[in-house]
Amino acid sequence: MAAKLKTAVLGATGYSGLELARLLGRHPRTDAPLLLRRSAETETGESDGHGARLPHISGNGRGNGHSPVQPFSWSVLEQHGVELLFLATPHAVSRELVPEAIARGLRIVDLSGAWRLKQEQHRAVYGFKDANAQTAAELTERAVYGLPELNSDRISPAALVANPGCYATSVILALAPLLSAGIVDCDRGIISDSKSGVSGAGKEPTARTHFVSVADNFSAYSVFGHRHTGEILEQLALNSCQLIFTPHLLPIPRGILSTIYVYLKREMTADEIQSCLHDFYNRKRWVRIFPAPSLPEIQFSAHTNYCDLGFCLARDGRRLVVVSCLDNLLKGAAGQAVQNMNLMYGWDEAEGLQ
Amino acid sequence: MAAKLKTAVLGATGYSGLELARLLGRHPRTDAPLLLRRSAETETGESDGHGARLPHISGNGRGNGHSPVQPFSWSVLEQHGVELLFLATPHAVSRELVPEAIARGLRIVDLSGAWRLKQEQHRAVYGFKDANAQTAAELTERAVYGLPELNSDRISPAALVANPGCYATSVILALAPLLSAGIVDCDRGIISDSKSGVSGAGKEPTARTHFVSVADNFSAYSVFGHRHTGEILEQLALNSCQLIFTPHLLPIPRGILSTIYVYLKREMTADEIQSCLHDFYNRKRWVRIFPAPSLPEIQFSAHTNYCDLGFCLARDGRRLVVVSCLDNLLKGAAGQAVQNMNLMYGWDEAEGLQ
Amino acid sequence: MAAKLKTAVLGATGYSGLELARLLGRHPRTDAPLLLRRSAETETGESDGHGARLPHISGNGRGNGHSPVQPFSWSVLEQHGVELLFLATPHAVSRELVPEAIARGLRIVDLSGAWRLKQEQHRAVYGFKDANAQTAAELTERAVYGLPELNSDRISPAALVANPGCYATSVILALAPLLSAGIVDCDRGIISDSKSGVSGAGKEPTARTHFVSVADNFSAYSVFGHRHTGEILEQLALNSCQLIFTPHLLPIPRGILSTIYVYLKREMTADEIQSCLHDFYNRKRWVRIFPAPSLPEIQFSAHTNYCDLGFCLARDGRRLVVVSCLDNLLKGAAGQAVQNMNLMYGWDEAEGLQ
Amino acid sequence: MAAKLKTAVLGATGYSGLELARLLGRHPRTDAPLLLRRSAETETGESDGHGARLPHISGNGRGNGHSPVQPFSWSVLEQHGVELLFLATPHAVSRELVPEAIARGLRIVDLSGAWRLKQEQHRAVYGFKDANAQTAAELTERAVYGLPELNSDRISPAALVANPGCYATSVILALAPLLSAGIVDCDRGIISDSKSGVSGAGKEPTARTHFVSVADNFSAYSVFGHRHTGEILEQLALNSCQLIFTPHLLPIPRGILSTIYVYLKREMTADEIQSCLHDFYNRKRWVRIFPAPSLPEIQFSAHTNYCDLGFCLARDGRRLVVVSCLDNLLKGAAGQAVQNMNLMYGWDEAEGLQ
Repeated sequence: MAAKLKTAVLGATGYSGLELARLLGRHPRTDAPLLLRRSAETETGESDGHGARLPHISGNGRGNGHSPVQPFSWSVLEQHGVELLFLATPHAVSRELVPEAIARGLRIVDLSGAWRLKQEQHRAVYGFKDANAQTAAELTERAVYGLPELNSDRISPAALVANPGCYATSVILALAPLLSAGIVDCDRGIISDSKSGVSGAGKEPTARTHFVSVADNFSAYSVFGHRHTGEILEQLALNSCQLIFTPHLLPIPRGILSTIYVYLKREMTADEIQSCLHDFYNRKRWVRIFPAPSLPEIQFSAHTNYCDLGFCLARDGRRLVVVSCLDNLLKGAAGQAVQNMNLMYGWDEAEGLQ
Repeated sequence: MAAKLKTAVLGATGYSGLELARLLGRHPRTDAPLLLRRSAETETGESDGHGARLPHISGNGRGNGHSPVQPFSWSVLEQHGVELLFLATPHAVSRELVPEAIARGLRIVDLSGAWRLKQEQHRAVYGFKDANAQTAAELTERAVYGLPELNSDRISPAALVANPGCYATSVILALAPLLSAGIVDCDRGIISDSKSGVSGAGKEPTARTHFVSVADNFSAYSVFGHRHTGEILEQLALNSCQLIFTPHLLPIPRGILSTIYVYLKREMTADEIQSCLHDFYNRKRWVRIFPAPSLPEIQFSAHTNYCDLGFCLARDGRRLVVVSCLDNLLKGAAGQAVQNMNLMYGWDEAEGLQ
Repeated sequence: MAAKLKTAVLGATGYSGLELARLLGRHPRTDAPLLLRRSAETETGESDGHGARLPHISGNGRGNGHSPVQPFSWSVLEQHGVELLFLATPHAVSRELVPEAIARGLRIVDLSGAWRLKQEQHRAVYGFKDANAQTAAELTERAVYGLPELNSDRISPAALVANPGCYATSVILALAPLLSAGIVDCDRGIISDSKSGVSGAGKEPTARTHFVSVADNFSAYSVFGHRHTGEILEQLALNSCQLIFTPHLLPIPRGILSTIYVYLKREMTADEIQSCLHDFYNRKRWVRIFPAPSLPEIQFSAHTNYCDLGFCLARDGRRLVVVSCLDNLLKGAAGQAVQNMNLMYGWDEAEGLQ
Repeated sequence: MAAKLKTAVLGATGYSGLELARLLGRHPRTDAPLLLRRSAETETGESDGHGARLPHISGNGRGNGHSPVQPFSWSVLEQHGVELLFLATPHAVSRELVPEAIARGLRIVDLSGAWRLKQEQHRAVYGFKDANAQTAAELTERAVYGLPELNSDRISPAALVANPGCYATSVILALAPLLSAGIVDCDRGIISDSKSGVSGAGKEPTARTHFVSVADNFSAYSVFGHRHTGEILEQLALNSCQLIFTPHLLPIPRGILSTIYVYLKREMTADEIQSCLHDFYNRKRWVRIFPAPSLPEIQFSAHTNYCDLGFCLARDGRRLVVVSCLDNLLKGAAGQAVQNMNLMYGWDEAEGLQ
């Protein structure tokens, strides 16, 4: 049997990092990942996630599977012979570390927004400050947007994979087949009314993530201003005036549902829409198409790597509502990162994700 | 001091009925309401709502305020001298009882959908079967749609007030000022992506309302087919092809948030939109306008009779997102019913609702 | 009509302070309260509670009822002619301010733990550092533990009322009748297994109060070490070795349920227990006794000032389980504070609380 | 490689049955299980569980893993060559089917309460009506209580394994080490205050499981009368007067936490307690001991097969609080059933459960 891949996860104490550590820990083709934190962080300061709050279990109870989280350094990566580095870090940290990591010959799957956008107009919102602008520009060009259902050919050989945003994944996968088929009346605009569980807002305790603020509540936020808008526009080659993307905060720990409104160029039947989706995702392992009129719900894809798609077509055959669901920590982050790794190393796309 | 109004609530054990009983029980101008159930219902069969599950508290503990619920009959109404009858009953029951109630000289506030729709095309979905078609047709004409912010003049003298649907209230109050000002580009369509807490689905225990089905979940339902669509179209004089209304089920007990998408005929400023809303609801006691860019959230109007409105305008000045929140059991049902009663009897609109 | 009482709430932006501001705002015998924050706090820093997150509603929408919160000073109290000061502040702040407040002739209801404990052994856990030890000692003696059902005679004339802790209220009200009747076998010990909603943990955003940490979770904390233990022991004159009090965190915003285990000295009947509770709380407005075998649930007393009591007796007539429920922000904090004010000014105990 | 085991799950649409179907579907040593329903049930009537609500996904989307559920018959079992039958059925159904199943040479893991109790005094509460009393009595004797940590030797060769109740598992695993060590002062009584998520109450939609009844609520039930009491007493050889077991309903989908109160015969140290637990569960794969003073929480064991144990000892060294957590659908039902299967077929206890 072949030697197993050596991986590391930097930012292993955030929600996505923890989920990634868990997935890699049981992946049949990787060794237990090296878990790292940025040196500036105290171990306790970070240890308030789901799993990280679990104390060190003494001897008899085996199997909690949480290796200690070590401070990051290039030498610790070298010592462990790490080949693939996952970054579950803030955007600025990814932007800073990736140039050297690439120079050192590491392959990267970056879960942050640092390398997703090629168009300056969308990237501006992040306000990146690069030490070496030219290197950054070159890497921005080389980075591959890691949405396996659309970009598998380019992901396979990539050195730097920019793992997509959770909202963006749910919207792009719903719209790609329709836009590709040329049936969308773009003049009338596209609307994605998206709703996410709280883990999407990160582990930082704030007034906004306090239990009493979230429970029994529901709210819209970042209307006309969410960063994932740029990803959707760029990946789908849309013009900004034609999309409205509105995120909302759901009182649940995990899961995204996007309700997407599209007008069709001509009158169509439900069967035609169904075929359009089926044909596009034929042989795609992690997209499920629901037969109309059934619709996906957040529970169906929770704790899985699926993106579930369903739709309703109005009786006039022109107004289409698409519902897209996924687990923001899996298909929206750590699961998709593992799916990208599987492509990068030529493994089955489902390896370690079932 | 004037004698207090005698009221009765039929269907006093459902969520809306219970809330209504509670409001009337502390209203300064009404006697404790007579609480009634349809005779076919067993008391226990109905007694599983919030308050109704509360057992009869023995002597010392005063103040739980739940009078016994009696079987309905015309004679019990007469004995108690009831003048105003609230119907918190299924549509068919309201449709059956109202003709005789009106004939007996009672005034009615009906919380069901029985008398809300004048246009046959929207009413058809209910499938009413009237014993006397002509009387039903006449009453349908006479019934006043009980949305106080729009129809107060006609509510005041009305014998039969059709209390609006909860979703419909949230959408109509958001759109009325914009449509009235003539600034909406109707050709591009209007979309209301609405989300409701579970009490809106009624007290009936079903697979859909089971805690395990709802918690950690979120789902769309009745896409292109919800009954409240007709109310919105009819009240706002919209053409059916121009509105998409999509309800969703939130994992919370109560509250509605509608995210409403509108395109404007011309480029406008946020100040103009703000003025439009303010001017329309000037001196309206139960609508609050949030100053942009702040937006209402479900918690802000929960347990109150407010409908809260806020909005975001895109930088292009043409795409507008309006957010409308209310408590589905109060402004969306029992609170609005009391507001209607206040108008019908010439009292302050806020009486008993603060 | 008599002039209304002038009150102030210091700490008006915490959960209890907000609730208190709301109750006083609609109390028929008080003017709108003066809302204050400690000067060191920024207004925004504090403004993340339920109501405080509500933005300033512009002109037309009246009735949100949130006056601006001003910085605290003695002169602002004087200018407004405040007679009664509510402290919804941290323990140390109450300990610091009360001596001068009393010296200035104000009456005080303190919602913190600063003045609840007379016995040094229980007070030690707070680690108070008093500027003037003698004054502090005298005030500690003068302070009245503000549990109206037990201490109404002493509350009426008091200058300084120490409003009880939320857990302590639920446990003391359940045990007082049984201990008073002398039927408890103290040698076998008393256990209170208590569960509270998250608002009891305060408004501070922490890893522990993050939505993702609380939702779908349940946990015990401060076993053998919670500060309210001392209140229970002192008020019930128990010996510390005979009580185990275990708090737990419930994934709900508000409400406490205590399950209390008691062994009886002799075999008794359920009727005898029922009578014991009834007789003790005869004519007490805010305690409800549930008829066995029905038991209170958190929903029944949520959003009310009731403490609900119920019980189950084992067939052997010796083992008794008492269930006690209340709303931690009302009967457990702000509601009880208003109840104390009502007693202090000779008003009906229910005034402003229905 | 050896042929895989043929299994069937009867009652594959309830919460435990679904979880079992999922676990067996990915177990490396079993074929995909045959999923069965009792013939009297309609497929739709049963199809409202988590996974069963998922519609049949059409062609492209592989991997939802839900085989169709077929009506039960002995011949379908034979056709498929089933060797091991899991019963996730009501008690009475298990009681009825097991005699014939055993006669036909099948091995059984029964998740109901039908065969757990040998002592008539505890079994009476179920009111079993057996067609053949003698056979039933013999099988009752032969049945092995399937708690692997206590009974592995007897489970291995068993034909009929009675899978323990979820509450009972959490309490027995916490108390067994202490009772075995002889350190519990039984004269002072043992109390288990236990809390369970709603899936423990089953999939039947009732007033009690309605979302609005459960959310923001918490309640005790079946005080002094829950069926699992008998299991605890019988397995731990306790006398009924010495245990109080109080179940409560938590507003979460899954998970159990038991807070267990024990008095010790002599003053002990935390280290002694820790050793007592460690030694007892030495080499037990699915019990984790938390180092004092850390305590398990429901989230830590959710979605795993672990039973987590932690404790606090009072300063007097005599009063002990043990906290025990598990997932009621895994270690409390389906996971434990798989663990039992692993023992029955000589496989590693962790197979298919990681």
